[in-house]
Amino acid sequence: MFLSIDGGDGVGKSTQLALLKKYLENQGRSVVVCRDPGSSPLGESIREILLRARSSMSISDRSELFLFMAARAQLIEEVIRPALAEGKIVLVDRFLLSTVVYQGYAAGLSPESIWKIGQFAVGSCFPDITFLLDLDPDQAMNRIQRPLDRMELKGSEYHKRVRDGFRSAIKEIPLYFSAKGYLIDAGLPPEEITKKMIEFLPAL
Amino acid sequence: MFLSIDGGDGVGKSTQLALLKKYLENQGRSVVVCRDPGSSPLGESIREILLRARSSMSISDRSELFLFMAARAQLIEEVIRPALAEGKIVLVDRFLLSTVVYQGYAAGLSPESIWKIGQFAVGSCFPDITFLLDLDPDQAMNRIQRPLDRMELKGSEYHKRVRDGFRSAIKEIPLYFSAKGYLIDAGLPPEEITKKMIEFLPAL
Repeated sequence: MFLSIDGGDGVGKSTQLALLKKYLENQGRSVVVCRDPGSSPLGESIREILLRARSSMSISDRSELFLFMAARAQLIEEVIRPALAEGKIVLVDRFLLSTVVYQGYAAGLSPESIWKIGQFAVGSCFPDITFLLDLDPDQAMNRIQRPLDRMELKGSEYHKRVRDGFRSAIKEIPLYFSAKGYLIDAGLPPEEITKKMIEFLPAL
Repeated sequence: MFLSIDGGDGVGKSTQLALLKKYLENQGRSVVVCRDPGSSPLGESIREILLRARSSMSISDRSELFLFMAARAQLIEEVIRPALAEGKIVLVDRFLLSTVVYQGYAAGLSPESIWKIGQFAVGSCFPDITFLLDLDPDQAMNRIQRPLDRMELKGSEYHKRVRDGFRSAIKEIPLYFSAKGYLIDAGLPPEEITKKMIEFLPAL
């Protein structure tokens, strides 16, 4: 089983990844948690470039899109496919949905093209279930207990576009993959959110 | 005018880039020479990753493909489009054709998919003319006057696949771009090769 948790900044993805992992392990399952981009030497190098690019060198939206795809293809090959083959459950922090939203809906590239390039990048390896944690961006920003980074500082209009993008993109998953996407109200207490996610899981 | 010189290792691309540049400048034109991947801060970072990946970290063919596309998209945005807009002639050392050949024909990914992803990566910015320097791989390898690198050491069967790939891919250019591709016998003396390329150029 391959699951992803996606959504804007500050919606509580890390908390939910930890709670879901704990639940699944209590059910006796082996769980691998990873993040996209990242979790492979190449992925972490690309992550560094993306951070550096944002401060000290320029990077176009299109280049950014391809770097995310490169990191993702490697993550699948090196981490996700082997873990699934061993019968483990894989939980990923963000996945292709984020690229569709940030480079597509928010930055203006074609969401359809991103989905199609994504199909080539991931092959058939797409999360069986994607949980979208959905929250009003103003509420989400208030939750972040540290100085905001460059992306987070982009202003409320940008974050509204991201949120609306996620709400559209989650419905498009079945157009490109035989997989499910569920929107979950991230304004609920954390334990309630986990409970809702668990209700959507197939029998373990 | 946007021109590229492509082909396998050791066919004489650098020599021809220099000779063609000199000719065009003698005609009074401004010429920008660049290499793909490379020629932008992001492109050079990606180039470094590709070199590092080949020695000390693993990288899948698919990830490699996306890194090339990321570098290319940035090269276009930062170097090629601005130069063309100023009326300069751009000469590029390799371009999308190489990705179609190395990651497609040689490594086994679908050439058609690579062309299509390439269309998204470059938009309409594809060389008006691509010159393919074509040479028997054994002859090409003999020309390289330094220790061979990892790619060059791949063996004659691999290099034959690359050569055949280039010969197929050059004919496919018009299927995806309104642009031309010419195959040039790289076994000719350098000045003859330059002369042949010049014959294919539109009036300057």
